[in-house]
Amino acid sequence: MKAARYHGPGDIRVEQVSEPDVAKGQVKIKVRLCGSDLHAFLTVTSIFPTVDEPNFLTKEKLPITLGHEFSGTVVEVGEGVDKNKFPANQSVCAEPLLSCRTASCSECADGSRNICPHANSLGIAGWGGGLSEYISVDQDLVHVLPPNIPLDVGACIEPLSVAWYAVKRSGFKAGDSTLVLGSGPASIIFLQPIRALGASWIGVSEPSPLRRQLASKHGASALFDPLSPGVDILQSILDATSGRGVDIAFDCAGVQAALDTALVSLKPRGVLMGIALWEGKPVLDANLILFRELTYTGIISYDRVHPEVIQAVASGKLGSFEDIITSKIAIEDVVEKGFKALIEEKDRQIKVLVHP
Amino acid sequence: MKAARYHGPGDIRVEQVSEPDVAKGQVKIKVRLCGSDLHAFLTVTSIFPTVDEPNFLTKEKLPITLGHEFSGTVVEVGEGVDKNKFPANQSVCAEPLLSCRTASCSECADGSRNICPHANSLGIAGWGGGLSEYISVDQDLVHVLPPNIPLDVGACIEPLSVAWYAVKRSGFKAGDSTLVLGSGPASIIFLQPIRALGASWIGVSEPSPLRRQLASKHGASALFDPLSPGVDILQSILDATSGRGVDIAFDCAGVQAALDTALVSLKPRGVLMGIALWEGKPVLDANLILFRELTYTGIISYDRVHPEVIQAVASGKLGSFEDIITSKIAIEDVVEKGFKALIEEKDRQIKVLVHP
Ligand SMILES: [Zn+2]
Ligand SMILES: [Zn+2]
Repeated sequence: MKAARYHGPGDIRVEQVSEPDVAKGQVKIKVRLCGSDLHAFLTVTSIFPTVDEPNFLTKEKLPITLGHEFSGTVVEVGEGVDKNKFPANQSVCAEPLLSCRTASCSECADGSRNICPHANSLGIAGWGGGLSEYISVDQDLVHVLPPNIPLDVGACIEPLSVAWYAVKRSGFKAGDSTLVLGSGPASIIFLQPIRALGASWIGVSEPSPLRRQLASKHGASALFDPLSPGVDILQSILDATSGRGVDIAFDCAGVQAALDTALVSLKPRGVLMGIALWEGKPVLDANLILFRELTYTGIISYDRVHPEVIQAVASGKLGSFEDIITSKIAIEDVVEKGFKALIEEKDRQIKVLVHP
Repeated sequence: MKAARYHGPGDIRVEQVSEPDVAKGQVKIKVRLCGSDLHAFLTVTSIFPTVDEPNFLTKEKLPITLGHEFSGTVVEVGEGVDKNKFPANQSVCAEPLLSCRTASCSECADGSRNICPHANSLGIAGWGGGLSEYISVDQDLVHVLPPNIPLDVGACIEPLSVAWYAVKRSGFKAGDSTLVLGSGPASIIFLQPIRALGASWIGVSEPSPLRRQLASKHGASALFDPLSPGVDILQSILDATSGRGVDIAFDCAGVQAALDTALVSLKPRGVLMGIALWEGKPVLDANLILFRELTYTGIISYDRVHPEVIQAVASGKLGSFEDIITSKIAIEDVVEKGFKALIEEKDRQIKVLVHP
């Protein structure tokens, strides 16, 4: 079968690999749609194994089949899997979270597998990925999609779960004012849970004009171009929040300027929730954290939120995904039309889905 | 009367000033003992007014009478003050927190005056300070000391309240493991509430041998010298916490090395509580905040904790202060024996109290 494999920074190849078996407790999925991993090309290469050093969990070295945001249909189930839950052709999505699952790991024992010291993901650590025709996944990582969630939206459940989880972990409550600092597709996907959960005001700072336009359709109350020299984001935020600042800022950018803006925009005891991984290490105005008793926290992946996200999407609470999915491409085109388009046409692409 | 006044960075002079009046709603206090403000000499000069720019609240410019950690006895009360609560010679301590107290200030309206945008302190912003013979203070900032709290311990209520409040705001609960990163007197004073509130383990990283020795007497479970090259603090912490890391780290140092140690020493979802003000801006390993879902927060002063701190001290819960108060000096000696001793004899002095 065809698979898009990561051989190292900037080196992704579509190759022939053998189709996976289905082991005991697993569900074999025919992948229908999968998001494309921009990070693989760009930034945090340390989450991948190398050609010499295998991943701790999967024992796999590079190359690794990419893809952790995918939906598909059930092909076959392994021993011990309930066929009534996963009948053939059932639409499903995967929760690609891998962790050590050992009894001595307090995090895995508590169920918070995303903060296991060895936590990683299908499509990054090994055991296959969504950018291939088939993948076999442990049954507890497979979620049934209700009939009214189409497969393309199903492929968005993974990034939506990150957003939903971040909003929950931030201590957000209905009526809170928020600021979303974006520089990638994630910021638009963030707007859906923030709006659905009842934000009173959503400021969006986003350099891409397309994403600003989309943000406006998806519930943003005010839009800022952080690259425009004349824009006083802070003053606009203070004007919109009776001079106090926002309750919560979501950092979907991971750049110094966004961090600086977020911190000064928060009200006293406000929360900065970090979602974007960082290429470098920022400088922090630590006295601001003290003087305003701010909280800077962050999340990685998600912790048992998939069922409620699927329910929220099925109920229509999160709105439409039509304009978020900006293109669908074939796996053969994943490098040229997928990864490179997301980088080079940053202003025009939000979510590029691949159908293997 | 005599007063130690701050004229600018490094410039403190003991001078004659006029004795304060007692206005409506105020209590005039004869200061008995006052801690000496190391910060005035050293670091965060931005909290003071300047010779040209008055403080927003007090409208005073430099020089400013220093001293915000003081106890004393009641001399006289102004109109509208209950003489039964504040009889002559009553021992009291002051909570020196100043804020705007305007109806339009959400923080002051909520009672969290320490995070008012204009929050500051007696002894820094103006309206007198504890390093003088007398001071008149608004009655709601004056707390009666029970008979079993002597005046020297009364002068420690202010720094104790900072510590108590920081422990409470950190989300600390009995049974938590903790790391205290010190480089000044504050770290010893921190141990008392941490121990009193039930820490299961208290690691202390502190460069001064005297303070390490004292820390051991005051409940530290393990001591580290951060300047000693052979010390693997992280490994010792992991050994002491079943490989997980500590629940909460208290940064009483405000230096890059302490921040770095704190972040790697925390368990997943652990809390770094910042107390020390920073001279510069640290570099932050922001990905660590994400991957481990850490929380970095901080406090300034305290928010309505004085009554419970006084009660805890009176009940004996916080232990002894004998070896924390390392010297008592006259106001004439405040520069040579007070501020300079704290800097030059950093290894020998913890709390230097001044009796004006
Ligand atoms: Zn684990
Ligand atoms: Zn105020």
